[in-house]
Amino acid sequence: MNQQRDLIPEPALRRLPWYLAYVRLLREKNVEYVSSTQISRELKVDASQIAKDLSFLDIRGKTRIGYEVPLLEHKLEEFLGFRCRHRAVLVGAGSLGRALMQDSGLIQYGLEIVAAFDVDPRLVDTERYGIPIYDLARLGEICRRHKAGIGIVTVPVEYAQGTAEALIDAGVKAIWNFTPYRISVPEGVVIANTSIYAHLAVMYNRMG
Amino acid sequence: MNQQRDLIPEPALRRLPWYLAYVRLLREKNVEYVSSTQISRELKVDASQIAKDLSFLDIRGKTRIGYEVPLLEHKLEEFLGFRCRHRAVLVGAGSLGRALMQDSGLIQYGLEIVAAFDVDPRLVDTERYGIPIYDLARLGEICRRHKAGIGIVTVPVEYAQGTAEALIDAGVKAIWNFTPYRISVPEGVVIANTSIYAHLAVMYNRMG
Repeated sequence: MNQQRDLIPEPALRRLPWYLAYVRLLREKNVEYVSSTQISRELKVDASQIAKDLSFLDIRGKTRIGYEVPLLEHKLEEFLGFRCRHRAVLVGAGSLGRALMQDSGLIQYGLEIVAAFDVDPRLVDTERYGIPIYDLARLGEICRRHKAGIGIVTVPVEYAQGTAEALIDAGVKAIWNFTPYRISVPEGVVIANTSIYAHLAVMYNRMG
Repeated sequence: MNQQRDLIPEPALRRLPWYLAYVRLLREKNVEYVSSTQISRELKVDASQIAKDLSFLDIRGKTRIGYEVPLLEHKLEEFLGFRCRHRAVLVGAGSLGRALMQDSGLIQYGLEIVAAFDVDPRLVDTERYGIPIYDLARLGEICRRHKAGIGIVTVPVEYAQGTAEALIDAGVKAIWNFTPYRISVPEGVVIANTSIYAHLAVMYNRMG
């Protein structure tokens, strides 16, 4: 693991996937080089900011020409962790949980859901989109067997905190929380909140 | 529309759904009153911050007792726009698009997907999860018929900008962008970016 990775600030980290999306388009069009000025024009991000963000990657642009497109794509994917396979388990195979289980986009971004858990007897011991659904009672056993590092939480809000704790006990190092509940985690455990419904609130409000 | 709604800063707006999630738990347990101190302890947000955030709502707490739980829940839902029905169309009924179409949680947060669009002839004129899928060529006609105010963009990244423009031409006032592409919109149109894959990058990086 590159030491520089720890140093990158979150806003920069959040911009890198924009650059990756754009660079992929260029590569599909067989464009060979791209400069930060070009990326800047297209994405409306300051060019010096882009150069600074890209300085965290192990890549150097050529004067006047810029970055080699296929190399930049590769380095971005590598830096962002999209070229690895991260094993995750999902707890709560309800509507949102199943939505994530059927999204084949996740695997392209390095996330493999190896197992799901639920308490509903109609779901337990079935399989959806190729992912087995187990009884929640087997969480620890299955997590350890798969060495799952990430736990996805898509349970009803009242079970969010307890689910996260059970996942951490089972050895996961990161919680991806899709509930609107603010989960607390001990130091050393990563928490990522993706509250898609909170985004709705912001959108409604700004539509005024 | 309450004039105050325009004044609330985005960070406050993003915290309100946390309070709502917690208040709903209390209501289910038949708790009658809650103070900002209690919310603060549970959610690890500063109590004065909570009081300030809630001051945007049309509700007053009682000294020493706090807020009436059912009323606070109602006012939060109302303020956040979750009690209205917002009509949306979705463009791109691929994996992520269908994931959203099957998520019944959205309707509980006030979002009704009335139609979806795709270019794949195997999908056009079929229906998934009760939502009709139309040929993309009919976007303008169908959007106007439903008076859809929100356009959800779940197309491949190279079509993101063009799709947003077609939606805006068709009269939508807000774009909910799920692609990693940075869509530009004219002034007066709201853009909400939910890049779930960018969250993955942050999580991977922090797991180091």
